[in-house]
Amino acid sequence: MDTLATLQKQYDTYKKMGLALNMQRGQPSDADFDLSDGMLNSVTTADLVSESGVALRNYPGGVRGLPEARQLFGDMMGVSADEMIVGNNSSLKLMSETLMWALLRGMKDSPAPWKDAPAKIIVTVPGYDRHFTLLDALGYEMVTVQMTADGPDMDAVEKLALDPDVKGIFFVPVYSNPTGDTVSDKTIWRLASMETAVPDFTIFADNAYSVHHLSDDKDVPVNMLRACQESGNADRIFIYGSTSKMTYASAGLGFMAASPDNIDYIAGLMGAQYIGPNKVEQYRHVRFLNAYPGGIAGLMAAHATLLKPKFDVVDAILSRELGGTGLATWTKPKGGYFVSLDTTKPVASRVVELAGELGVALTPAGATYPFGKDPNNSNIRLSPSRPPLAEVEQAMEIVAFCVKLASAE
Amino acid sequence: MDTLATLQKQYDTYKKMGLALNMQRGQPSDADFDLSDGMLNSVTTADLVSESGVALRNYPGGVRGLPEARQLFGDMMGVSADEMIVGNNSSLKLMSETLMWALLRGMKDSPAPWKDAPAKIIVTVPGYDRHFTLLDALGYEMVTVQMTADGPDMDAVEKLALDPDVKGIFFVPVYSNPTGDTVSDKTIWRLASMETAVPDFTIFADNAYSVHHLSDDKDVPVNMLRACQESGNADRIFIYGSTSKMTYASAGLGFMAASPDNIDYIAGLMGAQYIGPNKVEQYRHVRFLNAYPGGIAGLMAAHATLLKPKFDVVDAILSRELGGTGLATWTKPKGGYFVSLDTTKPVASRVVELAGELGVALTPAGATYPFGKDPNNSNIRLSPSRPPLAEVEQAMEIVAFCVKLASAE
Repeated sequence: MDTLATLQKQYDTYKKMGLALNMQRGQPSDADFDLSDGMLNSVTTADLVSESGVALRNYPGGVRGLPEARQLFGDMMGVSADEMIVGNNSSLKLMSETLMWALLRGMKDSPAPWKDAPAKIIVTVPGYDRHFTLLDALGYEMVTVQMTADGPDMDAVEKLALDPDVKGIFFVPVYSNPTGDTVSDKTIWRLASMETAVPDFTIFADNAYSVHHLSDDKDVPVNMLRACQESGNADRIFIYGSTSKMTYASAGLGFMAASPDNIDYIAGLMGAQYIGPNKVEQYRHVRFLNAYPGGIAGLMAAHATLLKPKFDVVDAILSRELGGTGLATWTKPKGGYFVSLDTTKPVASRVVELAGELGVALTPAGATYPFGKDPNNSNIRLSPSRPPLAEVEQAMEIVAFCVKLASAE
Repeated sequence: MDTLATLQKQYDTYKKMGLALNMQRGQPSDADFDLSDGMLNSVTTADLVSESGVALRNYPGGVRGLPEARQLFGDMMGVSADEMIVGNNSSLKLMSETLMWALLRGMKDSPAPWKDAPAKIIVTVPGYDRHFTLLDALGYEMVTVQMTADGPDMDAVEKLALDPDVKGIFFVPVYSNPTGDTVSDKTIWRLASMETAVPDFTIFADNAYSVHHLSDDKDVPVNMLRACQESGNADRIFIYGSTSKMTYASAGLGFMAASPDNIDYIAGLMGAQYIGPNKVEQYRHVRFLNAYPGGIAGLMAAHATLLKPKFDVVDAILSRELGGTGLATWTKPKGGYFVSLDTTKPVASRVVELAGELGVALTPAGATYPFGKDPNNSNIRLSPSRPPLAEVEQAMEIVAFCVKLASAE
């Protein structure tokens, strides 16, 4: 190991380089976006009525979204069109709608609106900061369970589900943010069939990365809606997805899958909020994705070609610099957008601080925990998707160096 | 007057014509939509970064919407860009968000979330059915006041505002749905300055038709946000608008105006729900509307050219068939999308039924009242915007006839 003095000298050398690199958020690169530029003109004046006969410019069409869009993304999620709602951009907004209606009106079979009593939601840690922010803003209390290589720690979940204040669980089932872990089939069956204190216990599964594989070695767990149905708990789950990391991050589509009864219920409430989503934007997606060589899978393979070298270089540099040092562990996800790095010593916030001083912006330490508080001060979320490969490589050298320096200090 | 026997004979003649006409909803015509087809390709790969420097395809940009869009629609609403939020399609959704957050968290200066106590909202009747449906779905209680030629009946409003359960008023200030009435300046000043029992009394002004004039004889009342500010109640009002009846009904933009403090507050909460609206769609609007000859006013004048003859024929036929009979009165709006017809006898539902039998679909009688219950059974909302002129003429002959027959029965 290098001495602290050596590391501090190296720090000065890095500092003089005046770097400005960003590994902060899970954003696609411009090269990823370029793949979907055909979407900009995929609907013309020749396409003003969809194949199913919906006039795209006028109001009618329904709050569930275009039939063609529900079919396309239903196929992607392994459900039927009547188990789908396709909205505007942002699946987070659809999660928010569901969680809001649960508070104000309750779920379909709720004895009472959730606002009428304490409402706790289980979240996994490390997890996704926007889930935590949303739940807190709405007034939910969060209870944490550990994310494991098999998904949420089910022993803990099953115990918490027996608390009548606990109304549900909110997590990322595939290529989890930030660990990259995917629920095992066993976890899914336990979630689908477990005993719960309340009849309206709900799984909010943010399946943001279900088709975001980095190679042909894919995590494809059992269909969660089907597992719930086969366990006699068809109405237990809502599953969310979006094209934000397939087409355009800002101009994608959010969608959700649930039992037909749940879809009827929530569509009825959403129908009080608006006439329906932007049908022209939905049809742009339908026409573009259906025309793409290989369809959605073909587009995601093209993204993987851009993304995999970046994930490979993250692992290569961490292995080269930190392998065998005992200073840190990190994940090697098969898909998704993140690598999760855990320092052995409680120095995550110091690593992020040092990296910032050297011109490498990282996600704030603690962001993967509710209220930004990582009890071990060990977890750092790495987002290699946005910068060019050479910058990822340079940024990771800095990160690995900062782990060494922070640990030595 | 015709005898009942004559009218019944005429009924049989109309019946045999097998008409299929629709005056049910306030939808633009295809000719209106055609005016905005240039929007489909107003953003190309040459425009991937907005003039203000926002990368349109990636996430960042903010929950308030593109600066260019806030400027454009702020100008239209007579407010500044920092008094604006521009969202996705549907201003109703923005109203829903505001009303939901008020329940769950309260308004900026609320002593408590509105869900914690009875929450009543004043609505005007006749009024807009979607407002009633939304308020009811969210759990608000509605109290009605009469819509007058000067706007909401302010004597009634001022009295209700002294009830601590009354949290606000929800209405259409300009070319009201369905009466076409516009608030007078006096009404605006009374709303802006009136005494209220609660400090967080809120005016929800659905200004859907502010630029939807039928001719150069325009209703342009005093700026409602400025009136509230000058009355020392800057945070009392939220004003909503959309391009649904300017560009595409299904693919427009919704927006809202309020004091900078209110915008900061609600944007903070909306920022928990999503990263931001579809920026590509916003830039499509900006580029298209700024390039349109005469801008937004030019586009609205082109719509007026299509709409005015339809409104003229509605008035002409009602005057010819019912003028001087004492059987009905109706409005002659200077803008907006509706004509409001009141039968003298309580026969509105029978008129709608008879018209339906003769192949003319009208908005269900009662729809302009909460829960579809018009206490006088007299109000019928006529929507002449969607059908071609000749069909509006034919439909109105049937409507006038049905008023005669229902009144004679």
